[in-house]
Amino acid sequence: MKEQTDIHRHTIAVLVDNEFGVLARVVGLFSGRGYNIESLTVAKVDDAENLSRITIVTTGTQMVIAQIKAQLERLVPVHKISDLTVDGPSVEREMALIKVEAKKDSRLEALRVADIFRARTVDVAEDSLIFEVTGAREKVKAFIGQLGPLGRTEVCRTGVVAVKRGKDTI
Amino acid sequence: MKEQTDIHRHTIAVLVDNEFGVLARVVGLFSGRGYNIESLTVAKVDDAENLSRITIVTTGTQMVIAQIKAQLERLVPVHKISDLTVDGPSVEREMALIKVEAKKDSRLEALRVADIFRARTVDVAEDSLIFEVTGAREKVKAFIGQLGPLGRTEVCRTGVVAVKRGKDTI
Repeated sequence: MKEQTDIHRHTIAVLVDNEFGVLARVVGLFSGRGYNIESLTVAKVDDAENLSRITIVTTGTQMVIAQIKAQLERLVPVHKISDLTVDGPSVEREMALIKVEAKKDSRLEALRVADIFRARTVDVAEDSLIFEVTGAREKVKAFIGQLGPLGRTEVCRTGVVAVKRGKDTI
Repeated sequence: MKEQTDIHRHTIAVLVDNEFGVLARVVGLFSGRGYNIESLTVAKVDDAENLSRITIVTTGTQMVIAQIKAQLERLVPVHKISDLTVDGPSVEREMALIKVEAKKDSRLEALRVADIFRARTVDVAEDSLIFEVTGAREKVKAFIGQLGPLGRTEVCRTGVVAVKRGKDTI
């Protein structure tokens, strides 16, 4: 069943009017056409400008990504759109909160691992710790992987956010 | 036009099957019924378990929030749902990447502000800096506000993620 594919992960940034129902239209476009959403974040850019920025990580062939871009551009409330994976160098980061239930040695080991990954300890309870970690997707994944064997974990990831390097905006 | 309201901001965590179209159904539920989405993040929890966690910040009266919860519970791919704002103490954090175009004095001032907010400098170019800041919603907002006067900014926020404190999971 092996076949030649050139499916890659792409990080797409979309600047939209902060209007009711816009997110539903963007997400609906993906699900309606069968495009995969690996992660998605949306939040206001600025109270004054009334814009929201959506960051979507999707996977697909170059043709599929081009279709996604073209269809997003056709949505009226979309101001700008950029495929940050191909449009020049960008900084991509993700954040996660990870709670681990750990006592004694496991607790010490969790703190040691957190130190290596430069995670911040944001809560300490009798039997659990909560860490905040930021970094590239793979780093966040690796940190979660290291904590797994130390106790029951609860994971909440933001998904990727990204901005272009240098003067260029999306 | 002043009237008595008890509209509050609520952070809702939803654990769903990582299946195609689930996000569209959740977002569609909000837009179809006129519920506001202030921020939303969705990402995989774990490759093995095939679950995704959606964190939605919404605003509404207690009755509206109860309706949202009840309707989300009725969606088949929803495993768990929790209103973290009322279900006991939780840790809420947000991350943002902020690029600021700044030279000379403004650049130094931006670095000073970043230091105060414990932001990390994740990229340095000739005319611009990119910072990564994490913290409560208001802190992130305040940091963006401080950078605004120093040069043109580009902001990409993750929206809120949250986990319960202590042993209790969502």
